[in-house]
Amino acid sequence: MINNISTYQDFIKSEIENLSIPSKPANLYSPITYILNLGGKKMRPVLTLMACELFQADFTKAKGAALAVELFHNFSLIHDDIMDEAPLRRGNETVHEKWNTNIGILSGDALLVVAYQQLAVYEPNVLAKLFPLFNQTAIEVCEGQQYDMDFEQRDDVAIAEYLQMIKFKTAVLLGCSLQMGAIVGGAGQSDSQELYNFGVNLGLAFQLQDDILDVYADQNKFGKQVGGDIIANKKTYLLIKAFEDSNPTQKDQLNALMTETCLTTKVDGVKAIYAELDVKGKAEFKMDEYYQIALKNLSAIEISKEKKQPLLELAHFLMGREA
Amino acid sequence: MINNISTYQDFIKSEIENLSIPSKPANLYSPITYILNLGGKKMRPVLTLMACELFQADFTKAKGAALAVELFHNFSLIHDDIMDEAPLRRGNETVHEKWNTNIGILSGDALLVVAYQQLAVYEPNVLAKLFPLFNQTAIEVCEGQQYDMDFEQRDDVAIAEYLQMIKFKTAVLLGCSLQMGAIVGGAGQSDSQELYNFGVNLGLAFQLQDDILDVYADQNKFGKQVGGDIIANKKTYLLIKAFEDSNPTQKDQLNALMTETCLTTKVDGVKAIYAELDVKGKAEFKMDEYYQIALKNLSAIEISKEKKQPLLELAHFLMGREA
Repeated sequence: MINNISTYQDFIKSEIENLSIPSKPANLYSPITYILNLGGKKMRPVLTLMACELFQADFTKAKGAALAVELFHNFSLIHDDIMDEAPLRRGNETVHEKWNTNIGILSGDALLVVAYQQLAVYEPNVLAKLFPLFNQTAIEVCEGQQYDMDFEQRDDVAIAEYLQMIKFKTAVLLGCSLQMGAIVGGAGQSDSQELYNFGVNLGLAFQLQDDILDVYADQNKFGKQVGGDIIANKKTYLLIKAFEDSNPTQKDQLNALMTETCLTTKVDGVKAIYAELDVKGKAEFKMDEYYQIALKNLSAIEISKEKKQPLLELAHFLMGREA
Repeated sequence: MINNISTYQDFIKSEIENLSIPSKPANLYSPITYILNLGGKKMRPVLTLMACELFQADFTKAKGAALAVELFHNFSLIHDDIMDEAPLRRGNETVHEKWNTNIGILSGDALLVVAYQQLAVYEPNVLAKLFPLFNQTAIEVCEGQQYDMDFEQRDDVAIAEYLQMIKFKTAVLLGCSLQMGAIVGGAGQSDSQELYNFGVNLGLAFQLQDDILDVYADQNKFGKQVGGDIIANKKTYLLIKAFEDSNPTQKDQLNALMTETCLTTKVDGVKAIYAELDVKGKAEFKMDEYYQIALKNLSAIEISKEKKQPLLELAHFLMGREA
């Protein structure tokens, strides 16, 4: 029997409630309880549970690994929001806004440790496989965040560097989420690696889709301000590609638009150059490329098509496509 | 053959140099290399190596555990220095001063993960014992730091709360350092627990000594400004005890001294009340109590006296006593 996405989401939400985070010291633990209950799609732990179920009838065995990736993700949100000076997260105050920066730093630290603690439920031989993967992923996520911050100060970021950054900052945690589930489920080395690659490529496609939607989404269906990346001069795939492909005149126009104070003029001006260079089409092409590789990774796994259906549906769902 | 302290210190310094911290991204890894080379007594990893050698001829087997506790300690220094707005660490600029707060947050995060990575060298059954101990200690260190920050905002901190705070903030990591070495060395459950307790009680004695020295040390031999805690109104064992034991007149005097702007008057005034209440004697009594329990913990370990000699010498050394 195949569960649909909400079954896994409901399971993980209920397990988060059962975590029994201590109540004292309140300034350490209240922010943890707060961010874990802000909502979100729980995409990463759902991937872990689904990956486990590919190889093992009982997906609940992946509970510890699923909680670890979800808690790790929330640790990174608390610290990233401090670094980005973000006031809001999922429509609510960020931790450092609601409390203060020191509390954000320390509760984030504690949450990272609590994430690790979730792995302690596994028997030694499983732990010994999960642990290096989780460590390696965690360090890459830190590297990705550092590159993202470094890029804000640079004018010469290349597409290859950008792709490496989003791979580390976003995509590897999806790969890790899947591979941890596969390990708990008892997958072989090859299937486990294919699932990791499926997650990384899906993550890259998903992030490129995010870059595209930020410019071209229907405002009524988009959770954020459409054009926000353009207004913030954010170095997305689209902007970097536009600079790479533009002629000297277009480059001058783009550079002038970076300091344009009328936001409507700015957004329309950048979009006009994007249209001249077909930057949207190029980004969609790259996104599709990663998505197709992801689907190939999934089909390479030696499991019946029927069992892979939930992961395929989740991939379609994440990429906003019909199943 | 018994090694003296510098043998272990030299070993750990050399292993820190061999860590091969990546060079890129530089803003993530340079602060890590920087803080790991600021010096310090390397007390925690030395404890780990010595504890291992109690049960196992080759102390180098505890290398991974020793590096893990030293790296964890340095992670906590980077983040604590941000929270305390400390400009200097071991006479040099703190990481957030030399770089910035964001780099301090993120390089600290990465260093915590690199600390965990050091444990991945152990075989599954050893890792499965080290991992929960390290997690539990890490979470207690976070709790200790949170209590320390909370206490700054409170006027009613009790001695018992203060002792609990320094136990978590400082002492448990010494216990953990020893117990990790014991686990790697193959110690039994009882010896391993005694060593943990030895470390915790030694840590408590050491922190109380620190509180005493901050007021009564010979300035020529003391690394910090004597009287610094009094000037900063820091809630040490001495100040909390003075408030607890003072009569209404003395309490009024103490409260007035908290806002005294002439620092000489302030330090001399607080010391006069400390003298009236024999706060120094009471702190020394408590310190000795913990030290004697620590020595009992050590003597309870079922190993020849000769083998325990290095740990005894290190304890004497830390407490500034003759061997």
